[in-house]
Amino acid sequence: MVDGERRRVLITGAGGTIGTVLRRRLRERYQLRLLAHEEIDEPAVIADISDGAAIRPAFEGIDVVLHLAAAANVDSTWDQLLAPNVVGAYNVFEAARAAGVRRVVFASSTHAVGMHGVEAAPELYRLDDERVFSDEVALRPDSLYGASKAFGEILGRYFSERHGMSVICLRVGFVSPAANEAFRSPRELPERQRAAGPRAGAIWLSHRDCAALFAAAIDAQPALKWAVAYGTSDNPRQVWDLSSARRLLGYHPRDRAPS
Amino acid sequence: MVDGERRRVLITGAGGTIGTVLRRRLRERYQLRLLAHEEIDEPAVIADISDGAAIRPAFEGIDVVLHLAAAANVDSTWDQLLAPNVVGAYNVFEAARAAGVRRVVFASSTHAVGMHGVEAAPELYRLDDERVFSDEVALRPDSLYGASKAFGEILGRYFSERHGMSVICLRVGFVSPAANEAFRSPRELPERQRAAGPRAGAIWLSHRDCAALFAAAIDAQPALKWAVAYGTSDNPRQVWDLSSARRLLGYHPRDRAPS
Repeated sequence: MVDGERRRVLITGAGGTIGTVLRRRLRERYQLRLLAHEEIDEPAVIADISDGAAIRPAFEGIDVVLHLAAAANVDSTWDQLLAPNVVGAYNVFEAARAAGVRRVVFASSTHAVGMHGVEAAPELYRLDDERVFSDEVALRPDSLYGASKAFGEILGRYFSERHGMSVICLRVGFVSPAANEAFRSPRELPERQRAAGPRAGAIWLSHRDCAALFAAAIDAQPALKWAVAYGTSDNPRQVWDLSSARRLLGYHPRDRAPS
Repeated sequence: MVDGERRRVLITGAGGTIGTVLRRRLRERYQLRLLAHEEIDEPAVIADISDGAAIRPAFEGIDVVLHLAAAANVDSTWDQLLAPNVVGAYNVFEAARAAGVRRVVFASSTHAVGMHGVEAAPELYRLDDERVFSDEVALRPDSLYGASKAFGEILGRYFSERHGMSVICLRVGFVSPAANEAFRSPRELPERQRAAGPRAGAIWLSHRDCAALFAAAIDAQPALKWAVAYGTSDNPRQVWDLSSARRLLGYHPRDRAPS
């Protein structure tokens, strides 16, 4: 397949955990352009997502943007979130609109609706608990980080409905920075994640499934103008309903956290 | 009634249209403190809502905050909205939390869900159309202004659920700056509003009803930790459902736009 036939995909936050997974696993399939706020180990446009004018040229000629750039720590303060997550989200949607980009895939988070989980924990994570949250539950962030992701979703909906851009919000679970495929035992997880206990297993997303999820969002039918879907592997305790990801995007996870 | 018994209410954006209506009509009922970004015709704390440190002292000793300060034009650009509506909303919730304020009443807007109306117009505004939108419809802003208001609602929900603060979001309709009680004929409305056509009559909120709405939110039972309600007068074509305002807040509009 020649380059001209492959979709031209811009990845923002290319140096981050998910960005690194995606640029390594999707490079055969798409024509990638990378955007990062500092040098990474391959060619990239270096610009800060909070600088609308600086990132704009990177959007020219792009078919689909994967917008990952963000402060990704759930404990981030407002001062840490405002520029990358709030201003950055606007800058990306606006740059995409101005450049005529067909679709933006926005990396949202289960934290945008995390209060549903907090309220139902810890029983929620028992294997015999049957509660599942659909992607239509109300936005109830469990953190300022989650509120910043909810805002990105709302902005995306506005850009989709007002400007006709296709916007797909993926509420991505936990992607480990380690280059693993198999789920690591709780002992191997970072302390934060270990403290999360069984929740970690419910939101785990393997590298392979992560790449499949974003590829599914890139390739989903052009008529899909707006969607919200959870993104986890096929875990034993599936708290966040994957049916939209399966039905609308054709995402089929192949990995599974151990129970 | 002595001052010590009246609730201490801080009004942000006291110099704006709604702020002016409320400070004039609620001053007998509550002990008011006013916050404005520039001098107004009565004593006020002068500080910019986007400066968290500057507004903080105004929250000390306050029972309820009416947060009105915002860029209020539906056509506002992102640059006009970011400081007052986005950063300002965070600053107000955070200052209220830090000062132990019991309740924040946030002036949201029907524009936070305005796309439901856009989609259903113009038939929606016919007197024989029976569609009504509940306060539980998805956030679908019709503008960046609406998106900024939706963000304020989401932030408020986070502060309510995480910090135990009571937050009431009022999706306020159209309050005319003119000191009128009766609905003005379309000819007398500003050009923008005239262009909105029959929508103006559906979202009209008289000055008297506006004061009654905010007073109802101030006085609503302390156990009410989170609510979203539309705020219009008792108009002939009621597109936005007032039942939450009536049931949760005890709001009873007395005025009515002419059909």
